[in-house]
Amino acid sequence: MTGSLRCVGLGPGDPELITRKAERLIRAARIIAYPAPIGAASFARSIAAELIHPDSVEIPIEIPMQVEQFAALKAYDTAAIEITGHLERGNDVVVLCQGDPFFYGSFIYLFERIEGRFDIEVVPGVTSMTACAAAALQPLCGRIETLTVVPAMLPEEDLGGRIRSAEPFVVIKVGRHIGKIRRLLDRLDRLDGAVFVSHASLPHQSLTPLQDAPDPAPYFSTVIVPGSKLLAVR
Amino acid sequence: MTGSLRCVGLGPGDPELITRKAERLIRAARIIAYPAPIGAASFARSIAAELIHPDSVEIPIEIPMQVEQFAALKAYDTAAIEITGHLERGNDVVVLCQGDPFFYGSFIYLFERIEGRFDIEVVPGVTSMTACAAAALQPLCGRIETLTVVPAMLPEEDLGGRIRSAEPFVVIKVGRHIGKIRRLLDRLDRLDGAVFVSHASLPHQSLTPLQDAPDPAPYFSTVIVPGSKLLAVR
Repeated sequence: MTGSLRCVGLGPGDPELITRKAERLIRAARIIAYPAPIGAASFARSIAAELIHPDSVEIPIEIPMQVEQFAALKAYDTAAIEITGHLERGNDVVVLCQGDPFFYGSFIYLFERIEGRFDIEVVPGVTSMTACAAAALQPLCGRIETLTVVPAMLPEEDLGGRIRSAEPFVVIKVGRHIGKIRRLLDRLDRLDGAVFVSHASLPHQSLTPLQDAPDPAPYFSTVIVPGSKLLAVR
Repeated sequence: MTGSLRCVGLGPGDPELITRKAERLIRAARIIAYPAPIGAASFARSIAAELIHPDSVEIPIEIPMQVEQFAALKAYDTAAIEITGHLERGNDVVVLCQGDPFFYGSFIYLFERIEGRFDIEVVPGVTSMTACAAAALQPLCGRIETLTVVPAMLPEEDLGGRIRSAEPFVVIKVGRHIGKIRRLLDRLDRLDGAVFVSHASLPHQSLTPLQDAPDPAPYFSTVIVPGSKLLAVR
């Protein structure tokens, strides 16, 4: 009998936004893996810290930052080997993932390396996207609106193509791309009503009209641009 | 002193996918409002049922179904008056909302009627969209992909315009529109890999390739169409 792999979405950062199911699985886990940028604390682990059993075996997936994509993928190769080793010996493994595992989640890299060979369960979590909307008291989308979600690191032309005819849209992982986004929104006449939110649900959460946002912005920040069918309430 | 209004997202249906924060607020609430289609049980209330204090005052927002939009809006007018009455008398009110309140959530109707006059907090919840992806073991979006979310009730031409050049996309609230969606996806050559999920996270959850989905489909059902940049894993 091989073990089961469960990936639990942890939500945007506030430990209270962990679901009851994720809480139960983390408390019961004795082997826990999570992404851990080399040289920095693991954000995922910090969200779940109070729920992790002190006798747990921990598998930090050590992701080199600020280097080429290739090195990050190698880290997932290594982690997949370690995790599948545990699963083959019949041990269950819980993987932590901030936000939701399948919505721009780091778990996807691991999933692609393990899928099909073991029993896998994914527990969805609150995305930072809806946590940002809640923090800003800004409805994201409703009724017959189409929502578009774009990652900020897209080249300016691609980004423009994606949002040119978009109704409400959200730009995620804003970081150092904020200047480009502001320029683009200004050109498309969508700056008005655009809200910038960083670190939603955390003590250092910050929100401001996009015009007043810092440049560079934190990596974990989001721009919400309301549509016209829903009233833009702020 | 007026009371506070808190809207809590309940997630897709499994009571274990309620967040710890929503659980705490619902348990503490003594005035609780929720949408309740006339002639049917309230889905939102059913998710939170075990957490509702027996002495709570309950305010069902009685939404007439299958009639023109106008009657539903009247129901929110009436509920807003009742809820603001409680708030003005200094009582706190908790509003239940399945999924996430600001992601196609019913709470938006109430919010538009109350916003600006009282202390309002929105607690984000797990969306049915990511719960469907988790159930299907199908990553939604990752890396530099753009995600598009479209409501199924859009006219065929509008729907086609929205998804024609979309990378991964999700069609929500499929219901009786499934024939139209299947036709459209066939024409756009996106039927392959499209997954149909209904009642994600509930005991009667069902998932199947879109080709094999029932027509009409349940209202609470979703079609996930993977992009090409992420491997379409099934």
